[in-house]
Amino acid sequence: MKKVILLAAAVPMLVRGEIPEKAAALRDSALQDEVAWSITEGLTTEVGQRLAATEAEARARDWAVARLKALGFSNVRIEPFTMDGWVRGEEKAEIISPFPQRLIVAALGGSASTGSGGITAQIVGFPSLDALKAASPDEVKGKIVFVWHRMQPTQDGSGYGMFGPIRWYGASVASKKGAAAIIIRSIGTDHHRIAHVGSTNFEAGVKPIPAGALSVPDADNLERMLARGKPVSMRLTLTPQFTGPRQSGNVVAEVPGRDPTLPMILIGGHLDSWDLGTGAIDDAAGIAITTAAAKRIMDAGRPLRTIRVVWFGAEEEGGLGAEAYFKAHGSEAHALVGESDFGADRIWQFKMNTGAGGNVVKARIGALLAPLGIVTGSGEAHAGTDVEPVANAGAGVLGLNQDGTHYFELHHTPDDTLDKIDPEALRQNVAAWTAALAVAADSPDDLRAK
Amino acid sequence: MKKVILLAAAVPMLVRGEIPEKAAALRDSALQDEVAWSITEGLTTEVGQRLAATEAEARARDWAVARLKALGFSNVRIEPFTMDGWVRGEEKAEIISPFPQRLIVAALGGSASTGSGGITAQIVGFPSLDALKAASPDEVKGKIVFVWHRMQPTQDGSGYGMFGPIRWYGASVASKKGAAAIIIRSIGTDHHRIAHVGSTNFEAGVKPIPAGALSVPDADNLERMLARGKPVSMRLTLTPQFTGPRQSGNVVAEVPGRDPTLPMILIGGHLDSWDLGTGAIDDAAGIAITTAAAKRIMDAGRPLRTIRVVWFGAEEEGGLGAEAYFKAHGSEAHALVGESDFGADRIWQFKMNTGAGGNVVKARIGALLAPLGIVTGSGEAHAGTDVEPVANAGAGVLGLNQDGTHYFELHHTPDDTLDKIDPEALRQNVAAWTAALAVAADSPDDLRAK
Repeated sequence: MKKVILLAAAVPMLVRGEIPEKAAALRDSALQDEVAWSITEGLTTEVGQRLAATEAEARARDWAVARLKALGFSNVRIEPFTMDGWVRGEEKAEIISPFPQRLIVAALGGSASTGSGGITAQIVGFPSLDALKAASPDEVKGKIVFVWHRMQPTQDGSGYGMFGPIRWYGASVASKKGAAAIIIRSIGTDHHRIAHVGSTNFEAGVKPIPAGALSVPDADNLERMLARGKPVSMRLTLTPQFTGPRQSGNVVAEVPGRDPTLPMILIGGHLDSWDLGTGAIDDAAGIAITTAAAKRIMDAGRPLRTIRVVWFGAEEEGGLGAEAYFKAHGSEAHALVGESDFGADRIWQFKMNTGAGGNVVKARIGALLAPLGIVTGSGEAHAGTDVEPVANAGAGVLGLNQDGTHYFELHHTPDDTLDKIDPEALRQNVAAWTAALAVAADSPDDLRAK
Repeated sequence: MKKVILLAAAVPMLVRGEIPEKAAALRDSALQDEVAWSITEGLTTEVGQRLAATEAEARARDWAVARLKALGFSNVRIEPFTMDGWVRGEEKAEIISPFPQRLIVAALGGSASTGSGGITAQIVGFPSLDALKAASPDEVKGKIVFVWHRMQPTQDGSGYGMFGPIRWYGASVASKKGAAAIIIRSIGTDHHRIAHVGSTNFEAGVKPIPAGALSVPDADNLERMLARGKPVSMRLTLTPQFTGPRQSGNVVAEVPGRDPTLPMILIGGHLDSWDLGTGAIDDAAGIAITTAAAKRIMDAGRPLRTIRVVWFGAEEEGGLGAEAYFKAHGSEAHALVGESDFGADRIWQFKMNTGAGGNVVKARIGALLAPLGIVTGSGEAHAGTDVEPVANAGAGVLGLNQDGTHYFELHHTPDDTLDKIDPEALRQNVAAWTAALAVAADSPDDLRAK
């Protein structure tokens, strides 16, 4: 603690970036936070996976309401919406020849079913989505497409933008060329026998095909098999099902401000998770960090502006909770939005989108974050999926960017579990969010970006 | 290479431990070895898992014969034996209440079946095997026993001796107290959602019960659930089957010595593996290392003694290949035995059991290994399971001990795959075995321990 205070004193003062004493004190006491850990531990232990539109997600909403009320938030409620459910079935990938063995596979969200008997076909491999796009339909027709790649870790997560499209669009491209199915090397940077799932998207009018992800070691093994030059055939069995219209929902809680006429601050993360892990880093940690920070502001005395904390539903299926929120609340005045949805490692970078009216607040936040080891970055802050519609409508964006170097070792895998979270890193996150909220919620300045 | 030679020159000469030039040259050229990698890559890619007494293990034997012949070994043959087969079935562990969710489980070798409907019972937890042993049958009867522990990594693998008994004997202890089933925290030091399997042993007359291992994160989660003080109930489904008498076998190859009257050297590893991974570090690497070293000796000109290389079958089921070998060959004269079966990390320690007649050889080997970063250890060398019967009958034991710090992150898991092997560490192993064989196979000294 002492070290933090000394570092704070050593930060050069930015123009108008002076550090408000109250915010600095709140930041420092947040380094002792236990609330974020308690939420993360509780949700992963007492609920576990929370796939959108399932009974588990509904239990998670009830858990959320009880916890948010117990923490003292106001106006705690569930805002339900309806969506099409999808659930995983049987999952098997067997090399039939020339090297019979089973590979680890998991269906991508939105995958069609192979039927319970599976499909058996020859593998045609491509090193990238671009190579698949360039292939003639003759090469692909009736085959199981396999796309590999060499995703590398990046601190800022930009590798996801580069390699994510293999999962997001590969199935649609393969289907248009007549492929029987597609399997991709997991969009991940680990070397464990666990597949990274996530949604795949079929363009309107394109026939959905079975689509799965192999674990990285299995994809590497298949690549070695193909390199031997003999035809490789696989029996692929994936039997996911669309379950029809089901309920999902957002859980909303508030810290009412002293001046309800001022545009509010919207923060949060998503309550739903993929189904193979327990949704610890994606995104129990995110809702825990933002909620713990909001509670610290609340407990320090009513802020000037209202802070709304939302635990969004069905983020993983393409931001359905975000759509529902914007439909219900898009017309309300939002000053600033921010989401924590990139794991639980330390925040390394701060960015903020705001008009000229927000410059003082931005400088103050930057100065407050420096002692936590956070650099102020240049360029645009990225609004998370859940708050993006509100940001697109003009709200300012608070970007507290977590170190993503290890994020894609765990992202959308069975390995997304509590033991992967460092409690000290979680506290650094809470301290950063607390500092930012302390400044932004007590300032009457116009924080909007547009 | 230059660095190695310089280091070699700097090693103080032990009494009678002078470094034979030919052995030093063979050691150094082995640091360029490609044979061990080729065997490991080939076996894991072209065969994959090789569970004893299955069709996959039979394919592995055929692969072995072809490869050993192609490498130029003599007298290559399969020596078959019969054993009871056991294969994995369905595997599910579901918390029913109070926190419904699925946990990752795998059946231990020798587990009984729950039947396809599974069994539902309350969990009773124990922190150790000793605590289970101390429990009254009233606490355990009709329940699913859960044993956790805090296994830590050790370089010399001694943690396995300390925590292994939970897997080896826990099921038998639980059955005698009337437990419906047992699940243990995997005997492993990783934090991934993969279970560590391996055999469990029921004492004669004790009724086999279903026995499984939870992944470490799942065991930690269950421990947290129990800590909340409410009764926890689980539905456990494990449907393994004993498949009756099936064929397994050892694959034997030789480098004939110039003097067939001298007792031979027996080295090797095991060809079979557990069924969830591809048996890369356990034990494709071990057979690859010892075979590559024997080939280097062979290619350098006929050694004085015969070197026999055995790729043992059914090691994982309790050393059945070892028994079959000893039955067939126990009466032949063996001077020295050594097995590589502790992964593929660097060798850190050399030990050798030998009588006074072997002291010169031992000192020379120690001096040759020093430049590879290998310390000569005190105490008894451990003969691997496969060569133990021959060692027990009096042969000397060559112990080239691999660093086990990370071994139990992978041991008996789906993660035992090729990508976990560092080719440079594999070459250091080959160099050490080559050096040891170069000395021992060209010495007429009596190397026997008894």
